Amino acid sequence: MTESKLVGRFVGIGVGPGPAQLISVAAWEELQCCDLICYPRATSHESSAALHALEGLELPQAELREIFFEMSSDRDRLRTYYRELALSLRGELELGRQVGYLTLGDSMTYSTYGYLINALREIYPQLRHRTYAGITSFAAIAAHFDWPLGEGKERVLLLPCPEGMPALRADILTHDLVVLMKIGRRLPQVLALLEELGISENCVFAQRLGFAEERTSCGLADLPRDTETGYLSTMLIRREAHQPRHQLPTRPLRETLSEPTA
Amino acid sequence: MTESKLVGRFVGIGVGPGPAQLISVAAWEELQCCDLICYPRATSHESSAALHALEGLELPQAELREIFFEMSSDRDRLRTYYRELALSLRGELELGRQVGYLTLGDSMTYSTYGYLINALREIYPQLRHRTYAGITSFAAIAAHFDWPLGEGKERVLLLPCPEGMPALRADILTHDLVVLMKIGRRLPQVLALLEELGISENCVFAQRLGFAEERTSCGLADLPRDTETGYLSTMLIRREAHQPRHQLPTRPLRETLSEPTA
Repeated sequence: MTESKLVGRFVGIGVGPGPAQLISVAAWEELQCCDLICYPRATSHESSAALHALEGLELPQAELREIFFEMSSDRDRLRTYYRELALSLRGELELGRQVGYLTLGDSMTYSTYGYLINALREIYPQLRHRTYAGITSFAAIAAHFDWPLGEGKERVLLLPCPEGMPALRADILTHDLVVLMKIGRRLPQVLALLEELGISENCVFAQRLGFAEERTSCGLADLPRDTETGYLSTMLIRREAHQPRHQLPTRPLRETLSEPTA
Repeated sequence: MTESKLVGRFVGIGVGPGPAQLISVAAWEELQCCDLICYPRATSHESSAALHALEGLELPQAELREIFFEMSSDRDRLRTYYRELALSLRGELELGRQVGYLTLGDSMTYSTYGYLINALREIYPQLRHRTYAGITSFAAIAAHFDWPLGEGKERVLLLPCPEGMPALRADILTHDLVVLMKIGRRLPQVLALLEELGISENCVFAQRLGFAEERTSCGLADLPRDTETGYLSTMLIRREAHQPRHQLPTRPLRETLSEPTA
């Protein structure tokens, strides 16, 4: 007689960025079936941004567990951290529980969820799971300002703000649009660069969009030139002023002339 | 005595890509309050992909209106098209109606919704509206494969597939990750380029993810080398093999040696 082993299921969910209730309907339904819901909290913050993104929704009657969030850049520490987290989650899954794991924004876009799912697979190859995508912070910012993130053949670069401004300048000059994330203490330098390039007016900025301390700016003129900003700050940069397609002038003379004169 | 004019409200909603019910909870709630829901259908397709993305959800008892979708690259035609669409929607808003407008994926990421909102603002400056962000196709593909879209300082390029492969080669070589959209008839050339670069195994592909005719591939080996693909096809390209952070080797000797030997 064989005893069938209980098998749980792991569900990773991108809950969207700050503005509440941007979690998908499908993921929200899935969350109702979880026995345990884990949500990360940065050790530097008093509350979980991921939980904030669910504000106004009645959380399921599942066990809630806060996971302190390791943001170290020390590789050994990260490896140990995700392995230990994976081991503790494996314990829950082996009890046959459905385990939900919330991540801010999208689950795979610059998210540590990727590390976790890798660590889980490594120690538990029979893992049953599903990952739900989420709305990214930059999509939420673009929607807030109705700022198109790419039209026609435009090329869009996503990057965490580099240390040096020459690298950023080169990136701006070789891409139509730049989504600049994690600006933090480099905000004054970034603003100076954009002014020098004469393109501040084409840009928008948002910090902790949807949180009580939200700060947004269209055109950047109202941002203080000498103040650092926090972690959840993103800028959408357009190299050339936006001329909506539907407003473009009629075709250039050359093209018009080459048409048959019916 | 002044007669107050009725004022409606316009709600643009990114419904997510193919997989059903990826619309956000907030946008879905908003949709319940609409009097009129417009959804686009490409003239080349028999049904609306945006409606497909709501499959399994009970649509509100609002008036539904199919909008034939202009995909022309002719600027004059686009301008006329969006102006006329905006004029017809203004008519509804002036009757005090709440008008929802569905867009596939995210509302501002390579979306024609941007043209529409510009045209609406132009002819109706007092427009009351809100735009809801959505989940992009590439985030859904990344979640499907658990394929991290950026880690640490990595740079991610989003672009519609260029005509010439030399341009694509240069973009791949200068970015850590490339999200290649709208591949269409260029699939055989793209596959040949990736094979030549020796990086096919680092890539994933999805076409019409979440639709009945979905095709996905991890590593690209199972994709036919000589077949074109349709419009909703996207590839996630990684220049170098992915080494998850939590699995990285311990720090290089140099760093270890420079630490204090406590």
